[in-house]
Amino acid sequence: MSKPKVFEKPVGVKDYLPEAVKKLRNIEFRVLACMERWGYSQIMTPTLEYYDTVGVASSTEDKKLFKLLDRKGKTLVMRSDLTAPIARVVSSLLKEKSFPLRLSYHSNVFRAIEEEAGRDSEFFQTGVELVGDASPEADAEVVALAIASLQAAGVDKFKFALGHVGFLNGLFQETLSGREEAQTMLKECLLNRDYVGYREAIQSLSLKPEVENELQGVLRLRGGDEICEQARQVSKDPVAQHAIHHLCEVWDVLKAYGVSEHVVIDLTMIGDFSYYTGMTFEGYAAELGFPVCSGGRYDNLLNQFGRPAPATGFALKTNRILEVIGKEPVDQPERELILYSAANRAEALKLAQERRDREGRIVVTQLVSDSQTEAYTASSNGTYEFAGTIYHNVIKMFP
Amino acid sequence: MSKPKVFEKPVGVKDYLPEAVKKLRNIEFRVLACMERWGYSQIMTPTLEYYDTVGVASSTEDKKLFKLLDRKGKTLVMRSDLTAPIARVVSSLLKEKSFPLRLSYHSNVFRAIEEEAGRDSEFFQTGVELVGDASPEADAEVVALAIASLQAAGVDKFKFALGHVGFLNGLFQETLSGREEAQTMLKECLLNRDYVGYREAIQSLSLKPEVENELQGVLRLRGGDEICEQARQVSKDPVAQHAIHHLCEVWDVLKAYGVSEHVVIDLTMIGDFSYYTGMTFEGYAAELGFPVCSGGRYDNLLNQFGRPAPATGFALKTNRILEVIGKEPVDQPERELILYSAANRAEALKLAQERRDREGRIVVTQLVSDSQTEAYTASSNGTYEFAGTIYHNVIKMFP
Repeated sequence: MSKPKVFEKPVGVKDYLPEAVKKLRNIEFRVLACMERWGYSQIMTPTLEYYDTVGVASSTEDKKLFKLLDRKGKTLVMRSDLTAPIARVVSSLLKEKSFPLRLSYHSNVFRAIEEEAGRDSEFFQTGVELVGDASPEADAEVVALAIASLQAAGVDKFKFALGHVGFLNGLFQETLSGREEAQTMLKECLLNRDYVGYREAIQSLSLKPEVENELQGVLRLRGGDEICEQARQVSKDPVAQHAIHHLCEVWDVLKAYGVSEHVVIDLTMIGDFSYYTGMTFEGYAAELGFPVCSGGRYDNLLNQFGRPAPATGFALKTNRILEVIGKEPVDQPERELILYSAANRAEALKLAQERRDREGRIVVTQLVSDSQTEAYTASSNGTYEFAGTIYHNVIKMFP
Repeated sequence: MSKPKVFEKPVGVKDYLPEAVKKLRNIEFRVLACMERWGYSQIMTPTLEYYDTVGVASSTEDKKLFKLLDRKGKTLVMRSDLTAPIARVVSSLLKEKSFPLRLSYHSNVFRAIEEEAGRDSEFFQTGVELVGDASPEADAEVVALAIASLQAAGVDKFKFALGHVGFLNGLFQETLSGREEAQTMLKECLLNRDYVGYREAIQSLSLKPEVENELQGVLRLRGGDEICEQARQVSKDPVAQHAIHHLCEVWDVLKAYGVSEHVVIDLTMIGDFSYYTGMTFEGYAAELGFPVCSGGRYDNLLNQFGRPAPATGFALKTNRILEVIGKEPVDQPERELILYSAANRAEALKLAQERRDREGRIVVTQLVSDSQTEAYTASSNGTYEFAGTIYHNVIKMFP
């Protein structure tokens, strides 16, 4: 096997140079600050977790988990999301804390991927979990906070799609009872947004015309709050009816937040996380075909960690937000250069420190030999270049 | 093998609850801001690197590296420090950038450890690399910046020890030429600060009395700049002499920075990183027996990545700084609670948003049923408790 070249890094991982770091961290700071103003406190969990607990509870396919063995032979995973680790913390370190709990995070997560896919195997998520509140009010709060977070990150044009896993579960149970394979096939199509495939799959199932119509009708259930009324007519299954009722209540709260203009109802949406049990949502930026946010309700996950509780939350896909806003140039802070001779050293270093401490300036100091002292002169736009870096001001301290 | 309990996390890793996160992030922000004012720009590198390149170049013992295999069977490591990854970036993505390069980082790093040891296997480092400058001026800059960084982090009482790997290398080469095993044994004692062991080891080597004296004399080479003069007398070996000459120049620059009161020279100090080639230093906080900072010059590492260049830098051990300053209570920001009935929802949510956006307040909203509206009254100190959280102000919005 060939050795990697010394300058190579593994497939799917990135270096972030200073300008990208600045943008990424601006998103992080602004979004976490927004979440804090909504009462969410940041927590941090380790990169490595036990496979048998957090690994299994996570929504990530087994083959996409990075696994390794600890010294005792137990399998560890590199975290693939933060929801399962936070459920572990809520059930252990925070088990005496009353609900509701409002927690936020910003963290890298890991997915082992096929090399061809060209997708990231390490990327950032910034999100919240609201634990211990089953109400539509709680679901609407996290959707409204997701919207506020995207705005805080600097994303102006976006749309959120709101769905509910109970609607399709109820509808399919009603219409395709006992036909698990057919249900899975249809869900697969919807998950991939393959509506042509969905229509063809329905036709291949030899259903009664009225059932076929009902299932085809699902594709029309995307729009404003009129969808709630239409959906009530599509399926009389009690699970589906309950889902629609909850979703209408969430919508009403979103109207009260004044953010419903950013939201559409999309009952064809299937959240890509296996642990979702209720409302799910995704946020799309105008510039990108991929979601920049996904979230939903997961009322069974905490039970796996021994503290049963309803919960809802979301994660921003921070790297995709960086793609959306990353083209804009970042403000370059002004940099100063103090050139000094050995004889002026103490004076120069003291001045540098004063300008850093008192005025918050960025100041680089450089000793130059007496023969070099004339080498640095201003360019036409008043800036100076030294060793490939642009400085807005140069102070020369020579005898 | 027994399965881990659901609430367990792997040995040596930590959860950080909100209060600890606040302290840890305060250190991070203040230190990175300090580094930025000195002209250092933050970069970020991936958690996973190739073993054959960055893993081998790192200073971490092989058995302490977390290893895993990628899909092609190449061995990956979880980064154990940032110096080797940054050397890779300087030699690849930044290869067109002129020297000197000033880079900073804040990152988690990983060390696989014996379970008994009770040491962290994941912890944080905040540091800088100054690449492309071989001068004593550059070494003094990173020492002075390490001092400024500790101060920015809130550590008031500390001391830095300054050494040079060339002094002991030269002295041992002169006195124990060809006796590699003896040299290693003595270095091992000094690395562990086992001065009794060092004395005994010397006695066991059957040396001439004057050589024995010379080697015993090393233990006295700790103090102020008078040590430079004394050290010149101890060894006439040219490598040792050159080391002392360089160190005296660094000391002079540190005096010009006005920080020499924080520094002692300690020629018994052996940096614990195998890649150090020149000056090394460690910072100790008054409250702790372990160093909170370590750094030094590494002039050969960049060559391994194909862009030979001198370099110097340091890493703060961020978690240990958290131990030093972590006992002080963190300022709790004031939190407000808006309780509202369904009839007042839109009004309440709008008020919450105004107080968050315009006044930067932390505001939590909570729907309450009409029967609950009287349940929340102020405690004697004017604060309110709701669901286990203290609020400084409660606004009630009921019909």
